[in-house]
Amino acid sequence: MALTFWYDFSSPYSYLAAMRMTDAARAASIDVTWRPLFLGAIFSDAGYEGSPNMAHPAKAAYMWTDLTRQTRARGLPFTLPDPFPQKSTAVARAASMLDPADRPAFSRAVYVAFFGHGRALTDAALVADMAREAGLDPKAVEAGAASPEGRQALFDATAEAQAAGVFGAPSFVTSAGDLYWGDDRLDQALEAEANVAVAL
Amino acid sequence: MALTFWYDFSSPYSYLAAMRMTDAARAASIDVTWRPLFLGAIFSDAGYEGSPNMAHPAKAAYMWTDLTRQTRARGLPFTLPDPFPQKSTAVARAASMLDPADRPAFSRAVYVAFFGHGRALTDAALVADMAREAGLDPKAVEAGAASPEGRQALFDATAEAQAAGVFGAPSFVTSAGDLYWGDDRLDQALEAEANVAVAL
Repeated sequence: MALTFWYDFSSPYSYLAAMRMTDAARAASIDVTWRPLFLGAIFSDAGYEGSPNMAHPAKAAYMWTDLTRQTRARGLPFTLPDPFPQKSTAVARAASMLDPADRPAFSRAVYVAFFGHGRALTDAALVADMAREAGLDPKAVEAGAASPEGRQALFDATAEAQAAGVFGAPSFVTSAGDLYWGDDRLDQALEAEANVAVAL
Repeated sequence: MALTFWYDFSSPYSYLAAMRMTDAARAASIDVTWRPLFLGAIFSDAGYEGSPNMAHPAKAAYMWTDLTRQTRARGLPFTLPDPFPQKSTAVARAASMLDPADRPAFSRAVYVAFFGHGRALTDAALVADMAREAGLDPKAVEAGAASPEGRQALFDATAEAQAAGVFGAPSFVTSAGDLYWGDDRLDQALEAEANVAVAL
């Protein structure tokens, strides 16, 4: 029994959720399974060109204002990503191939590097550097990211998320299959997962 | 000094914000100016066909699930609007022509009729009935809605909102010009308005 946390490394609101997930889940006594996906494929299937948040200039400008406000309020570093979005497949394949228990530390390291300090998601040394920060073997993590299995794991995870109704990130899916979308719904998702456990 | 509350009568999250605005503003000791706009014109200018929330079937389905959850948690009535969206100009023109002090009661009555009980926004008797519920003269309110001045007032308000950066509803704009979007940001908007007052 666990809440599934679907996230994309190029998703700003996934950054917000990832940075508080471990503490929030612990406070709610809920197990969470971290599962990276590739949102670009979901947007493409939906017929969007790029991120729907970027389609309207006023909405795009607002999103960065909001991100600046939310990160400041939470004491998180923030640097406007340029360009945005960035292709998140290398780090997502790396995370997909990790033991699930190692994903939170690796993923937080990637988010802080990218959204916190402006490092490119496509930087060739990023996977190894983030593995090192998370206390993992950089060679092994790089090999996983570059393997056919890594590519397939991310493809399969994205298809599984879509089948569960996921259309954006972050998304949270309870053991009962109920979907919650957005960092603003994290607390309600944890509460719903707690209620699934109670109902059993 | 007041926070401006921009809302559209066909906007589900404007319904959530409208129903708690008066209490939330009182608790924060903030004056709020209620200003209806016509979101259809803003979406049309942005190149959207209809509501962007409805463009993706999974996202549209999720929105109604979320609305069902949020209204239930707040003890608000909810009926899935059919069709959706509905043209909100008649009630919006009526509200635009009211004394600002009369807008909250009239607007809440419209929201409860439409999102709470499934009454059509285009129902010919809606403006008069809602005026009566709000303790206003139904003939006078109908006359305002049908007047050229009512049409112009809503047109001008929508243009003013766009100039302030509004791209969706509900939106909240502080006396300092800072924009907050969505019912989930109402508390932060009130806090920001309180800080504008402190800074002066």
